[in-house]
Amino acid sequence: MANEDLKLKVAKEALKYVKDGMVVGLGSGSTAALFIRELGNKIQEEDLTVFGIPTSFEAKMLAMQYEIPLVSLDEYDVDIAFDGADEVEEKTLFLIKGGGGCHTQEKIVDYNAKEFIVLVDESKLVKKLGEKFPIPVEVIPMSYRVVMKALTELGGEPVIRLGERKRGPVITDNGNMIIDVFMKNIDDPIELEKEINNIPGVVENGIFTKVDKVLVGTKKGTVSLNRNKNKHLTL
Amino acid sequence: MANEDLKLKVAKEALKYVKDGMVVGLGSGSTAALFIRELGNKIQEEDLTVFGIPTSFEAKMLAMQYEIPLVSLDEYDVDIAFDGADEVEEKTLFLIKGGGGCHTQEKIVDYNAKEFIVLVDESKLVKKLGEKFPIPVEVIPMSYRVVMKALTELGGEPVIRLGERKRGPVITDNGNMIIDVFMKNIDDPIELEKEINNIPGVVENGIFTKVDKVLVGTKKGTVSLNRNKNKHLTL
Amino acid sequence: MANEDLKLKVAKEALKYVKDGMVVGLGSGSTAALFIRELGNKIQEEDLTVFGIPTSFEAKMLAMQYEIPLVSLDEYDVDIAFDGADEVEEKTLFLIKGGGGCHTQEKIVDYNAKEFIVLVDESKLVKKLGEKFPIPVEVIPMSYRVVMKALTELGGEPVIRLGERKRGPVITDNGNMIIDVFMKNIDDPIELEKEINNIPGVVENGIFTKVDKVLVGTKKGTVSLNRNKNKHLTL
Amino acid sequence: MANEDLKLKVAKEALKYVKDGMVVGLGSGSTAALFIRELGNKIQEEDLTVFGIPTSFEAKMLAMQYEIPLVSLDEYDVDIAFDGADEVEEKTLFLIKGGGGCHTQEKIVDYNAKEFIVLVDESKLVKKLGEKFPIPVEVIPMSYRVVMKALTELGGEPVIRLGERKRGPVITDNGNMIIDVFMKNIDDPIELEKEINNIPGVVENGIFTKVDKVLVGTKKGTVSLNRNKNKHLTL
Repeated sequence: MANEDLKLKVAKEALKYVKDGMVVGLGSGSTAALFIRELGNKIQEEDLTVFGIPTSFEAKMLAMQYEIPLVSLDEYDVDIAFDGADEVEEKTLFLIKGGGGCHTQEKIVDYNAKEFIVLVDESKLVKKLGEKFPIPVEVIPMSYRVVMKALTELGGEPVIRLGERKRGPVITDNGNMIIDVFMKNIDDPIELEKEINNIPGVVENGIFTKVDKVLVGTKKGTVSLNRNKNKHLTL
Repeated sequence: MANEDLKLKVAKEALKYVKDGMVVGLGSGSTAALFIRELGNKIQEEDLTVFGIPTSFEAKMLAMQYEIPLVSLDEYDVDIAFDGADEVEEKTLFLIKGGGGCHTQEKIVDYNAKEFIVLVDESKLVKKLGEKFPIPVEVIPMSYRVVMKALTELGGEPVIRLGERKRGPVITDNGNMIIDVFMKNIDDPIELEKEINNIPGVVENGIFTKVDKVLVGTKKGTVSLNRNKNKHLTL
Repeated sequence: MANEDLKLKVAKEALKYVKDGMVVGLGSGSTAALFIRELGNKIQEEDLTVFGIPTSFEAKMLAMQYEIPLVSLDEYDVDIAFDGADEVEEKTLFLIKGGGGCHTQEKIVDYNAKEFIVLVDESKLVKKLGEKFPIPVEVIPMSYRVVMKALTELGGEPVIRLGERKRGPVITDNGNMIIDVFMKNIDDPIELEKEINNIPGVVENGIFTKVDKVLVGTKKGTVSLNRNKNKHLTL
Repeated sequence: MANEDLKLKVAKEALKYVKDGMVVGLGSGSTAALFIRELGNKIQEEDLTVFGIPTSFEAKMLAMQYEIPLVSLDEYDVDIAFDGADEVEEKTLFLIKGGGGCHTQEKIVDYNAKEFIVLVDESKLVKKLGEKFPIPVEVIPMSYRVVMKALTELGGEPVIRLGERKRGPVITDNGNMIIDVFMKNIDDPIELEKEINNIPGVVENGIFTKVDKVLVGTKKGTVSLNRNKNKHLTL
């Protein structure tokens, strides 16, 4: 089964968690994009009253395209949020997110949801966080050099994320820069998440440690990993 | 002795710490403003090579007015930073800063200085942090409501800081909002500083716990309070 | 009749232009605030389907308070916009707006409305634009000095708008500064609006020249001034 | 002669215009990057007192790398600015700039220089502006849809510039979006520059009509095109 198929199966599985009347956090990334499309179709077909709160400009555009009515965090609490990830640590369900540069908005929505469910295919599972992906760190532009020093002192290898259709650094939707910091031995993600956020100039980092459930697309079907209990239930 | 005189005496005392060749962090607030003026004069009179790094737009304007050559954190490390405070906890030298809405830039400069010295008059000393002033918290605009909920759960009473020559909220130089959170019993400022910074949507809060020295203008002269040793040496 | 009464009468008169199903631009300022309250009440009482698009953070907060459902320019066209003004040139219906620092968002909403109606009391009428109020000009921060030079060359007296609950400049919701430029002899507001917007660094200025109707609260009743026809129709 | 060689020859030719004591605007793009390197070397070798004002984050990074001391528009006027271009209309010297997303800062620096010189190789020359490149238009995010409508009414085909190492739109260093608008028959660039800037929500567009000189790298040598006189002087 191709990767795209795995993602679609996960997206469809995720639909089962959406009930009429819910406010749904709409995440970013390829699997989340499929979910948004499927959710839009479900709302039309079943004539549901479901509102979306997007975690990124991209998610907003997709939601508009698939006619999911949008509201904002200013007015509504999030019942359930669905989002992608760059890496999922299998044992703990801790994540790295932010390859798309939107992890600040994503964390604002996802951490404030009553339930936060992650949608990935099995290629995203890792034994230890930091194996493949750097941790994205959103920073106030004037602070980038001193934040990079602080991240180096924490054992990381920081690089400025540069744009490709824009000269100079990638700028986030909040007007800030992103430092990608490679770190190989992340032993305590909960503490590291806090420590990085406490560096002056850091807005938010891409370590996510408050995840309720991860739906993983595998060749054998979609697997649900749950916080605490962990293992598993093949669907 | 009037309050203005106390501030001027502190500003002049602070000059003694500036050596030729230094890069100096230039703080915000009324005492820091006097210091910038005095430093500019000293540089001209003694023909010093001293560079300034401002912590706010206001400090930048003053430095330009008093002809202190400016550089930036992009290129230079800070040898010594001088800044004001809204409250200083006498026993610990922990501060609340940010009545002027610039605490994020201030903390970026001050925490990265080799030495960080605070300039206040005695009216700013308190027994316990939070006695008079709220903690300013800079937040990403889309998150203000959920951050206020999180601050309430931490025991605070958060209010949005509203503008006076601008309708709606005060916006910081970084484009964000400020939540002022009143908290009466701040028992562990170091932990609280971290906890608030770890709330998604929070950029930086106005608790400062890394202070090397506080120069206090009193009617009997300028007093120097030092981290650890604390008491003191009347000048 | 007190000024507050005049404003309320204008706000109530404005309600007559709102029809079921409309998307309404919600302006800023004291009269617009009364209008938002009255509109909220009307929607509840008559069970109307009306959506609001706010022109400022303040308008958004009020709309939420009075339970007007909000949508955005991303998805909806504006049928009719109501907004205040600092000065209205009686003969032409040209305005100066932006005392509240929101003129960029206001112009984005108001100019894109199918009908744009201004709500003021008679104290706002002037013979010639610029009589009492400066023109607010929103600028990219790095450009403020050179924009001020350019505005001086256009015959104005520019000053930086400083904050009151924030040290340094007022910052807009878009993260920019405001230059208030006093100009006494504004002979061609349409051309001046263009010229100022063409200065590099300028985001938008507070001259509004595309107004369909002005409702003026006077002691004798609410007067409607219309573009072109101009004079008048006492209600 | 390879393209890279043409660019280097232009960069070296440009050095002749820099005199001791000047404040130099440092542009963005590949030829401007070579110029910054050459300028840095010249400053070291000849021990010149020359200050740079960068037009972008990238130019700032390069200037720091080649040890050009930096100042800002807040304090200094620009004696001469050098910048690249995406298209140069041969007859008029009008430009399109902004493929790198920095045209707002570039125009702020370039238009405020006493002399503005453009550095390109011959592949950038066109008969008529808009032949190959779209006009980049920086816009306030909330306005993107209505600005795109207005640009369509002006005869253009607007598209949102999307990021590649960031999901969703490219965001500029000022926190705004970019609309690239394709327009084939640009008959009056001076008027079009104004008209686009007058659309509410537009910060600045990438049509540059105030150029003093263009240095063009050709296989036969570097050619200098001057405003008004135009043709030419082979070096």
